Amino acid sequence: MSGRPLDVLEASLDEDVTVHLKDGRAFHGVLGGYDQHMNVVIEPTDDVGDIDEGLLGDPDLKRIDNTTIIRGDNVMTITT
Amino acid sequence: MSGRPLDVLEASLDEDVTVHLKDGRAFHGVLGGYDQHMNVVIEPTDDVGDIDEGLLGDPDLKRIDNTTIIRGDNVMTITT
Amino acid sequence: MSGRPLDVLEASLDEDVTVHLKDGRAFHGVLGGYDQHMNVVIEPTDDVGDIDEGLLGDPDLKRIDNTTIIRGDNVMTITT
Amino acid sequence: MSGRPLDVLEASLDEDVTVHLKDGRAFHGVLGGYDQHMNVVIEPTDDVGDIDEGLLGDPDLKRIDNTTIIRGDNVMTITT
Amino acid sequence: MSGRPLDVLEASLDEDVTVHLKDGRAFHGVLGGYDQHMNVVIEPTDDVGDIDEGLLGDPDLKRIDNTTIIRGDNVMTITT
Amino acid sequence: MSGRPLDVLEASLDEDVTVHLKDGRAFHGVLGGYDQHMNVVIEPTDDVGDIDEGLLGDPDLKRIDNTTIIRGDNVMTITT
Amino acid sequence: MSGRPLDVLEASLDEDVTVHLKDGRAFHGVLGGYDQHMNVVIEPTDDVGDIDEGLLGDPDLKRIDNTTIIRGDNVMTITT
Repeated sequence: MSGRPLDVLEASLDEDVTVHLKDGRAFHGVLGGYDQHMNVVIEPTDDVGDIDEGLLGDPDLKRIDNTTIIRGDNVMTITT
Repeated sequence: MSGRPLDVLEASLDEDVTVHLKDGRAFHGVLGGYDQHMNVVIEPTDDVGDIDEGLLGDPDLKRIDNTTIIRGDNVMTITT
Repeated sequence: MSGRPLDVLEASLDEDVTVHLKDGRAFHGVLGGYDQHMNVVIEPTDDVGDIDEGLLGDPDLKRIDNTTIIRGDNVMTITT
Repeated sequence: MSGRPLDVLEASLDEDVTVHLKDGRAFHGVLGGYDQHMNVVIEPTDDVGDIDEGLLGDPDLKRIDNTTIIRGDNVMTITT
Repeated sequence: MSGRPLDVLEASLDEDVTVHLKDGRAFHGVLGGYDQHMNVVIEPTDDVGDIDEGLLGDPDLKRIDNTTIIRGDNVMTITT
Repeated sequence: MSGRPLDVLEASLDEDVTVHLKDGRAFHGVLGGYDQHMNVVIEPTDDVGDIDEGLLGDPDLKRIDNTTIIRGDNVMTITT
Repeated sequence: MSGRPLDVLEASLDEDVTVHLKDGRAFHGVLGGYDQHMNVVIEPTDDVGDIDEGLLGDPDLKRIDNTTIIRGDNVMTITT
């Protein structure tokens, strides 16, 4: 999947994503929404099998249990 | 609940939210207002039962006792 | 008191507020003015009885003795 | 003295002010100018008697000896 | 290859790049997209031979395994 | 010399200035140019006698040997 | 060479420059491009003789081996 960053986010709506924050934490869930600042809405996922391998066992990775808004300026990467 | 980040905030007005700040602190209360910078107004909640489980016993979690404006650039996540 | 963040500040003019800064310090005084960046003007208060309980004995809390402009980007929370 | 932050600065022109920076330093002098970013111009003062009491003996307080422009994003507070 | 920064990014689309972040990490992959904030999309590369020599053995260098959006404010350098 | 910050910079063109950066370093030279972000151009000075006394012996003070552009967001103060 | 900061960059195109970053690193190469954010493009230089003397032996100085875009907010100084 290619394109400009916001195009990739648009194409990832309702898909599982992993959001890594600048402070080392990571959130895994479904991309429910985003805006031009890269503020994102992450929702719980039922999919337990597709977490990025490198994150397995990562104590800083958190599955989303409740709808969570992440303010964009905390984001380091969003992986689809 | 899905949608763009500010839509989720709009839908959460008068509902309990937990706001996690970049410095590790967290505030729990009712979302009284917000703006496009994600500045938020949090008010005291009477609901003592619905704090995010992961936060129980968290010494950094503070229940709001007075109307509190949080400047948006401190916000890491807002959980509904 | 509810509403958008700047509405709450408008309603708090001439009232006592506590401003917590990102570096841990806190200022208590009367809200004399504000702008859209959350720059605020805090003035001395005669009211010695209403400091937020959690701040009593807080060595980082300072009562305002002179009119003080706080640049908004230092602000973490403003409590009414 | 009350009003919006820039109104207070306007009213303080040619008056002594103390500017506290985010890094703990403080400058005392005459407010020679300012702009909307809270960049300020501080000039030497002849008034040796009116430094904020809490700053007496403060090793981080510096009297201005030459006209000094302080870039606004360093400012924590300006006290009149 | 010369030109303004965004021109160089445009010319590097579908080419291998190494993105160094401010926190010391580096990502190697194909530049799939970018925008004016230097938010970039990096995709997995099949090319295993062209990593910048200075990075060989760098424990902070990560090959991209999944399409990854990097928020521009984390970027230090992008090397073509 | 008084006035708004950029007016003071305008009046200081071709004069010696000392620029203190946020990280503690200081540069001494002739102000060759500036813009509204307080990006400045500092050029070598032939005047060896007028460095701010407080800076004498300061290991962090550097005389400019080549034309140097300083990005404005590094600037703490500019002293004329 | 004098003038506003971007004028100095314009005049330095295709010339050797040294870019010092906020984190202490420095890059030496040919200025291939720039924009109004002081994002710069640095290209390899063949000129091995003109590195700023103060940088000789500096372990943090890196000669550019590949075209490198430096995001402007990392820049402390650019020396011509």
